[in-house]
Amino acid sequence: MRQAPVTTIGFDADDTLWQNERFFRATEDRFLDLIADFGDRATLATRLFAVEKRNIPLYGFGIKGFMLSMMETALEASDGRLAPAVVADILAMGRDMLSQPVELLPEVRETLEALSDRYPLLLITKGDLGDQERKLVQSGLGGLFRAVEIVSDKSDATYARVFAARGDGPERGLMVGNSLRSDILPALAAGAFAVHVPHELTWSYEHVEAAVAHPRLFVEEHIRKVADRIEIINASGDDLTK
Amino acid sequence: MRQAPVTTIGFDADDTLWQNERFFRATEDRFLDLIADFGDRATLATRLFAVEKRNIPLYGFGIKGFMLSMMETALEASDGRLAPAVVADILAMGRDMLSQPVELLPEVRETLEALSDRYPLLLITKGDLGDQERKLVQSGLGGLFRAVEIVSDKSDATYARVFAARGDGPERGLMVGNSLRSDILPALAAGAFAVHVPHELTWSYEHVEAAVAHPRLFVEEHIRKVADRIEIINASGDDLTK
Repeated sequence: MRQAPVTTIGFDADDTLWQNERFFRATEDRFLDLIADFGDRATLATRLFAVEKRNIPLYGFGIKGFMLSMMETALEASDGRLAPAVVADILAMGRDMLSQPVELLPEVRETLEALSDRYPLLLITKGDLGDQERKLVQSGLGGLFRAVEIVSDKSDATYARVFAARGDGPERGLMVGNSLRSDILPALAAGAFAVHVPHELTWSYEHVEAAVAHPRLFVEEHIRKVADRIEIINASGDDLTK
Repeated sequence: MRQAPVTTIGFDADDTLWQNERFFRATEDRFLDLIADFGDRATLATRLFAVEKRNIPLYGFGIKGFMLSMMETALEASDGRLAPAVVADILAMGRDMLSQPVELLPEVRETLEALSDRYPLLLITKGDLGDQERKLVQSGLGGLFRAVEIVSDKSDATYARVFAARGDGPERGLMVGNSLRSDILPALAAGAFAVHVPHELTWSYEHVEAAVAHPRLFVEEHIRKVADRIEIINASGDDLTK
């Protein structure tokens, strides 16, 4: 009998299971309104992104780092004329984001419930530890996962380690996510399968310029199609697992 | 033959393995200098602590939250007169903290090396994920631990879960740390042994008013004495494990 190639399924969280980028975009819009006096909107947006990117090694991913990068952008752009009200507004916007109720994407719960009957599921997400834990609790999805890994960054070593520790190794793992850069490419590099479920909003940092083709990569427009895709992969048997 | 009561040893990181509070204190001093115009020093320090404490549910523990709490304190205390230079200085102080080289406490390496020959060691720490990972890498101690758990908070459930997943359950675990509130009391509540190694500096939040006495609690003035203490506990045999 042929072995099913995929035994363990990993899921990204932000913009795969629940809305995330939408709240960052809305906050960024409010922020750009706030500092509109200091330059044209497109330039300020570019500036914010440059600051965020520069700060990733220091702040990691998540809302607190975003707040600090907004502070820094406002400070630089204002050239010494930063009003205290802007600082107060940035703090308030960050607090709003950190208290934002979790909004599950359509059919996420049904899909995870169906899959969790047949496979151990892993949640693999980056961002602020406490904030991701809060969202997981609020989502009510926690009980569907064998393990939750909140990591500081998602590299091929991350996927190799997590699928080895929590499954049967990366070759028997499949990662589902919206970000080519963080979910798909490193999972493929680790030797896993990957299903890319694009989200209409994806942060510039997560964009990948070149089109990606890989024998273990599949693209689905909706998370509900992931279960069928896995059945097809597993029905195809061992020839896909080498 | 009697079973050794302790089979797995957990270590706190900040102010147990390496200096931490020292850098927060130094930054707090610089911050209080910075906002000295807005009130007397003791009042401003009390105010900062109140803001930090209030923000823990939102920001968790760590440097980024501390930076944001300094911003908030400065903003409130200045009553609308916050100078942009103060914002810039807070950002710079935070960056300094996040780049601060790790400074191991005396004899930590020798103690861990000796213990790791005989027991699996766990690192159990709270704070910002990326920052704690950075410090662990810099410390060169990573290879001595069976597992590293960076958690958002340290409750009895945390210790129960970690000692169950990574050892033989909390009853056979022993936690070493400097904070009664975060390391010792919840570990004891989970049923583990605990060795309190006080540090000369401990953040007010971690203070516990009442003296603590417990049959599974031991106090040592220096981490090098932990190995001997564990030998004594294990030599005493099963009568301590009920």
